[in-house]
Amino acid sequence: MYSRVQKILWNVVGLDYVLSGEMAAPYCIDWRGRYSGDALAVVLPGDKQQVAAVVAACAEHGLAIVPQGGNTSLCGGAVPLPHSQQIVVNLSRMNRIYALDTVNYTLTAEAGCSLAAIRKAAEQANRLFPLGLSAIAEYCEIGGNISTNAGGVGVLRYGNMRDLVLGLEVVLPDGRIWDGLRRLRKDNTGYDLKQLFIGAEGTLGIITAAVLKLFPRPRSVASACVAVRDPAVAVGLLAYLRENCGDKISAFEIISSSCLDLVLHHISNAHEPLSRRHDWIVLIELSDVLPVSLDLSLNYALQGFGEGILEFSVDSNERAASWWYLRKNISEAQKLEGFSVKHDVAVPLSHVAEFLTQANSALRAVFNGVRIVAFGHIGDGNIHYNVSMPDAVRNSVLIEKSQQVNRIVYDIVNGLGGSISAEHGLGQLKRNEICQYKDAIEMGLMRSIKFTIDPENLMNPGKVI
Amino acid sequence: MYSRVQKILWNVVGLDYVLSGEMAAPYCIDWRGRYSGDALAVVLPGDKQQVAAVVAACAEHGLAIVPQGGNTSLCGGAVPLPHSQQIVVNLSRMNRIYALDTVNYTLTAEAGCSLAAIRKAAEQANRLFPLGLSAIAEYCEIGGNISTNAGGVGVLRYGNMRDLVLGLEVVLPDGRIWDGLRRLRKDNTGYDLKQLFIGAEGTLGIITAAVLKLFPRPRSVASACVAVRDPAVAVGLLAYLRENCGDKISAFEIISSSCLDLVLHHISNAHEPLSRRHDWIVLIELSDVLPVSLDLSLNYALQGFGEGILEFSVDSNERAASWWYLRKNISEAQKLEGFSVKHDVAVPLSHVAEFLTQANSALRAVFNGVRIVAFGHIGDGNIHYNVSMPDAVRNSVLIEKSQQVNRIVYDIVNGLGGSISAEHGLGQLKRNEICQYKDAIEMGLMRSIKFTIDPENLMNPGKVI
Repeated sequence: MYSRVQKILWNVVGLDYVLSGEMAAPYCIDWRGRYSGDALAVVLPGDKQQVAAVVAACAEHGLAIVPQGGNTSLCGGAVPLPHSQQIVVNLSRMNRIYALDTVNYTLTAEAGCSLAAIRKAAEQANRLFPLGLSAIAEYCEIGGNISTNAGGVGVLRYGNMRDLVLGLEVVLPDGRIWDGLRRLRKDNTGYDLKQLFIGAEGTLGIITAAVLKLFPRPRSVASACVAVRDPAVAVGLLAYLRENCGDKISAFEIISSSCLDLVLHHISNAHEPLSRRHDWIVLIELSDVLPVSLDLSLNYALQGFGEGILEFSVDSNERAASWWYLRKNISEAQKLEGFSVKHDVAVPLSHVAEFLTQANSALRAVFNGVRIVAFGHIGDGNIHYNVSMPDAVRNSVLIEKSQQVNRIVYDIVNGLGGSISAEHGLGQLKRNEICQYKDAIEMGLMRSIKFTIDPENLMNPGKVI
Repeated sequence: MYSRVQKILWNVVGLDYVLSGEMAAPYCIDWRGRYSGDALAVVLPGDKQQVAAVVAACAEHGLAIVPQGGNTSLCGGAVPLPHSQQIVVNLSRMNRIYALDTVNYTLTAEAGCSLAAIRKAAEQANRLFPLGLSAIAEYCEIGGNISTNAGGVGVLRYGNMRDLVLGLEVVLPDGRIWDGLRRLRKDNTGYDLKQLFIGAEGTLGIITAAVLKLFPRPRSVASACVAVRDPAVAVGLLAYLRENCGDKISAFEIISSSCLDLVLHHISNAHEPLSRRHDWIVLIELSDVLPVSLDLSLNYALQGFGEGILEFSVDSNERAASWWYLRKNISEAQKLEGFSVKHDVAVPLSHVAEFLTQANSALRAVFNGVRIVAFGHIGDGNIHYNVSMPDAVRNSVLIEKSQQVNRIVYDIVNGLGGSISAEHGLGQLKRNEICQYKDAIEMGLMRSIKFTIDPENLMNPGKVI
């Protein structure tokens, strides 16, 4: 059967862009090497018509599709399943920027544009595209950013990817093209269909192009590195800063001492950020369109906060860059350190400190000597909470018990009204896990949406739902 | 059959809260007196359990439901259809504020809370809920605001209602309660179901409570009244101001001279805003959390803009209030003036001037002496574009030809990639019209969503879809 499809694919995209065997292999494993699978073929269409034709051919022959962008997903959402007969549709060739409208503050681009290319195009037009995933911006693609509703450091001010999309073009599971490439700030003409596809991880269709919101480009930036007594102080500090600096806060990240250890150990040119080591530091960024001295404002605001700040430093040049260099390299440092049981969780901000206290003590009670590496977007209530043991032997035992670790962490998150996947999505990793935490009504609604849009379950089966 | 349902309703909400006949009449006509219909009963539940029981009873007996909040809809979305056997479920009694979390910047409230009550509660906690519908804030309710994805003057900075909702609780068409009352900034665990119900105008379920985003409360405000040569200058001015004042721009509204005429004629204490009359004025508001002098910044920015500004004035006290008083009273003035053919349209900002030029000239070509009253949220590309004749006789002729007027306006909007309902929704008014402008794929997707969630078509039938 596939040979017939293969001929269609060759016809549609050309021989060079239907890969199999060794050529296909790099597309069947995720960038961190954690998920791998098998595909009948990897297809690289050159435009939306080709995507539509590929999808229609697969639909006709009952072949499942894995939509793929930069393949930087962290939950295995963009690679085929093992021993599967799936077709990977990789959109990397579709990397045209269609339009940049400085008056409308919008950019229209194909799904395969890298985030870095989009940010650069905006910058060249004196505009900002604020999605901040600096560690992978060269590799991740905007279609994937949209499909996973990507987060990052800019969410506090600019929102998640969902908030940055005005319009979408989507190839539906039957191969029809939905043209929703609107450039409007307001459009209340029925159900907002684009919302379905944002964050759906390719299970409802393939996003082929998007209209993105742009923002004025900040001309002033200042950063602070603040040692806080504990995460509760960090949360209080954010509420205080919002009252006093408002929209100027463009990032607010927390880093635990254990996390800093890893970065200083594994990453070259990483330096201790303050005069001495503290349990927790917070990195703050203010930015403004006006050419103003934000260093002064930030200094003043931090001085006024009162008890709980142990030490702080404000800078807008090299030192600031060195602080953000630490933050940017946390994932890489962890990768070099070895496996850990990772969690990407969110709770309401007012429960962040409670979450950390509860989870730390629950894990310590079960796993003697456990090491907690916690960091992330505390400004959004989003903590990357990673659990490991200090030595390799005990660590491999812990990894085997990762289900138990997950259960402890997720039960606490759930008890605090939180989410077990704040920004990375469900993919393969949490597809079953989520059934423990969403009620039957919500799971039922999700399944009926999936069935309505993709009745044959051909779009990224085995992911999300 | 209804008598059996009536007994159930009595049992569920109590005799006093099942209205019929004269008591029900005020709920069966919209606030502007444009749409009226008939209901078997108007039910006023006291909590979500009662809503669920009412909906379940109606579902069991095949009775259609019209969800209703403050009944301030402009498109007839919240009143029953004429000669219908529908049950109006009015949520006004459900007006409790459940929680206000100053650290998490969230407020959780029942759907029947008035917008004014929510804004006030936020203010008392030194927070801002930014939805700006000042003319009707006392009457409209947050459930209706969410169901219509309300807009208003604050969208430019804070987004539409959709952007202000973190969580929802919804009674589904079969009477089950979906608890999605999350207070999270990030949650990527599958399809974002709340998006379905936001802007659905009650056709997919009844929103019974919501978690809303709060913001820091601005401490500085300044306004400008700017006479511009034409709308193109206004659009250019906004792009320029965004570059120079960024997030501080919290409102940017345009008012035509014809519009000003109506307000000055009908509204007491309304005064000419500038030294002389101009074709177009723009009202601008800057606000900031910091206690800074925005008057200076605004003055400086306006002086730097260059050609196209004919006159301007900056103020942050009584004069500013008097300008916004004009804006606030436009709808009232129009109501007093009499009927006009109204349009609530949006186009990309870069096409606003083109839209106005094209529409004005197309209408003038067909209707000699036509009067265009245009105003609104030009910062969002959203123009309220109202068409009438200067005298009552010719006006009644025009009203009869409103279909033709609509076709002229909407075809131009559509040609410019715009929306025929920017912020008011479809309701009854544009339910058929929209079929002219959305393609079959989009209409098909909308219908399949509707059928999936509400297979018996019992939720607000005859509206939207």
